[in-house]
Parts: sequence; structure tokens; C-alpha cells
Amino acid sequence: MEEKEISQAVIGRLPRYFRYLGELKDEGVERISSQELSELMKVTASQIRQDFNNFGGFGQQGYGYNVEHLYKEIGRILGLDVIHNFIIIGAGNLGQALGNYLNFERRGFIFRGMFDINPQLVGRDVRGVKVMPMEEMERFVRENDIDIAVLTIPKTSAVEVAERLAANGIRAIWNFAHVDLNVPEGIQVESVHLSDSLMKLSYNISRYKKEKENS
Amino acid sequence: MEEKEISQAVIGRLPRYFRYLGELKDEGVERISSQELSELMKVTASQIRQDFNNFGGFGQQGYGYNVEHLYKEIGRILGLDVIHNFIIIGAGNLGQALGNYLNFERRGFIFRGMFDINPQLVGRDVRGVKVMPMEEMERFVRENDIDIAVLTIPKTSAVEVAERLAANGIRAIWNFAHVDLNVPEGIQVESVHLSDSLMKLSYNISRYKKEKENS
Repeated sequence: MEEKEISQAVIGRLPRYFRYLGELKDEGVERISSQELSELMKVTASQIRQDFNNFGGFGQQGYGYNVEHLYKEIGRILGLDVIHNFIIIGAGNLGQALGNYLNFERRGFIFRGMFDINPQLVGRDVRGVKVMPMEEMERFVRENDIDIAVLTIPKTSAVEVAERLAANGIRAIWNFAHVDLNVPEGIQVESVHLSDSLMKLSYNISRYKKEKENS
Repeated sequence: MEEKEISQAVIGRLPRYFRYLGELKDEGVERISSQELSELMKVTASQIRQDFNNFGGFGQQGYGYNVEHLYKEIGRILGLDVIHNFIIIGAGNLGQALGNYLNFERRGFIFRGMFDINPQLVGRDVRGVKVMPMEEMERFVRENDIDIAVLTIPKTSAVEVAERLAANGIRAIWNFAHVDLNVPEGIQVESVHLSDSLMKLSYNISRYKKEKENS
């Protein structure tokens, strides 16, 4: 199956399909048409068919898609059929929240290590994982087949830490620091800029107020 | 100034402009051309000009934009010149992390209340805010001019809580529950689906591995 040159916009929509299909599967639904999926997800049926055509269409035959097959296929495309070991850099509230999030484990993301610069946090236990000092990060990444590093540290240190991770073979960075990271080619970065999301919300509140005042 | 019918894609890029301009301002930079901004932000200069033209272009004259003026204008468009009171529903790790995040305050988002269904968390202090029981949520929203509710609760309760908030005059929901919310028109929703973001990362790791194997 050809999986090249698929836009990040399409990729960005796959987890949502995966989520809805998982729920349908749990509810015992066996088949679903693109029309029904369209109504459920509030996207057009043609968008769904276009998205799925990027992956060969997933063999819609007669009445709709086989839910379990589609769920498994999308999971496989998303790389959820393999184990990804991850570490968290920054043992503050957000780091601990992510470390404690069991759903990641269900998707094959395994929490292996946690690091912090603050000696008072070193040694603390987060769901069976002990917080280690930053000096041990590089060795740990090299020796424990770590794919993903989650950065929940201030932006002032994020750039330097990302460079150290890149130099030691990390494959991907999930970045919560409020800064854009430039890493060598081949290292994947996905940023969650929480303030940006909040500002977008603020914009939409303001716009709606203005529209209401003007109408 | 005409601000209607601006796409959410453009709006989604404004916070990033705001962030870069804030950094330039803090560094004492007074003027910047779209070309320089383009190199810094790694987007095309034509994209920047197109985005800014949605808001009248921000008066680029002679050599580039006035950084402070542009920063203030974008902040105003984003609604950051007004105070937004917010509450957090769900006093777990993620809720506490968001409550403790001081940067929101700097942008005019003021943390006013926190609620949880768990009696053991009620009464706990998160940065000067006491966790209240869920039964007090509606009254609190009505009496304290609350604009935004942050949902850091499981998806099973998020839909019901969103309905209760909507019925009591909330303007916006910042949703961290792993479910899409359907709220009445006029209520803004911005979802942060953390698992979706992690799956996108996983996809890109897999794709890169395959590309490398095939090359």
C-alpha cells in the first residue's frame, strides 16, 4: 500500500477517525457507511472518502466499511501496532499529569523515565517511575530504546535539551514548551502550545461578542 | 476595521505571530520586514502579508512593521486586552497544572475557581483557589462573570458538565476531555486532544522508519 506524500492535514484527522471507530467497535457496531460516519463526526462524506482514498480506500464494499477492520487499519497506519517508549523531561504538574495518563499505555506508548533539574523532585515516584537527575538523561535514552521525549520544561531550557536528545538518538519530541524547536531532519516534533489554543478561544469569544453587538 | 469571515486557519496562526512579536519586543527590536519575520518563523513572506491583510495589513510603511504596534494590534484582535475569568472542572494533575500556569494570568486569563466530584480533593488549595464541590459550579459561574470553563475530566462526564455550563451562561469551553462536545451556538469550544497529538507523532515516526528502510 502506498503511504507516501500524505498531507499532515489528513494525518491530523486520522486520530479522530480512530477515536470514533474505537467507540463504534466498543458499542458492537460492525459496519458503517461513509454517510453515517459523516453524520456522526460532522464532516462531509466526500471528505471521509477522500481521506480514506489516501490509504487505498479501506475496501468499502456494498454497505459501508467494516468497523473493526477500519479501526485496526488506521491504528496500524498511525503506528499504534508497535511499542513506543517515552520519557518525560520536567517533573512539574504537567509532566506528572502526562506520566499518570493511563490511556497512552493502551495505545502502546510506555512511560519509561522522568527527569528533572530540581534536586527536590529527583527520587519522587510517578506511577512506578522514579524521577532522575538531568545528567542521566542521555545515557538513559541511548540504553533504553527511547523513541519519544516529552518536554514539559520552560522554553528557556527546551532548545538545549532538545539538542541533547537529538544528539543521543531520540526519534521524536512531544513539545509542551512555549517555543518552536529546530531539530535535525528525521526527528519528528509535535508541539502542543497551550497558550495558543487559549488565545484562539479568546479571539472567538471577542468576535462573537462583536457580532452580537452589531446584529 | 473589518474583522468578519476570517478563517479559523488564519486565527490559528495569530497566537504564533503574537509570540514571536512579543519576543522581538522584549529583545528591543523596533521594526521588522515581512521578509525577516518570514525567515524567523519559517513561513513565506507572502503568507504573512496575506494573513495580515485580513486585518487591514497593519500599516507596513517603508521598512517593515512597527513591532510594538503590531504586537498590540494582534493582542487586541485576540481579545487579550480584556480580562477573561476562568474556572477549571477537574482537580486532577492536569487541572492543577493548568491552574498553576502563571503565563495565562499575564495574558488576562484569571483563574477564579476549581471544581471536583471527588470529596477528597474538595478544599484543596491550588494557587490560592480552593477546590469546590461540583454542586456549586452553576451558581459560581452565574455569580462571578465566568467566561471560560476548562474541562479536565473524563469523557464520560464531560458531555453532561458542558451542558450544565452552557445552561448557566458560560461563553467558552476549553476541552481536554477526549470527546467532541456539541454545545449550543454562541458557545466557543476549543479542544486539546492530547492523544490525537501523540498519535500524529507516532505516525510520523513510523513513516520516517519506512522511508529510511526503502531508501
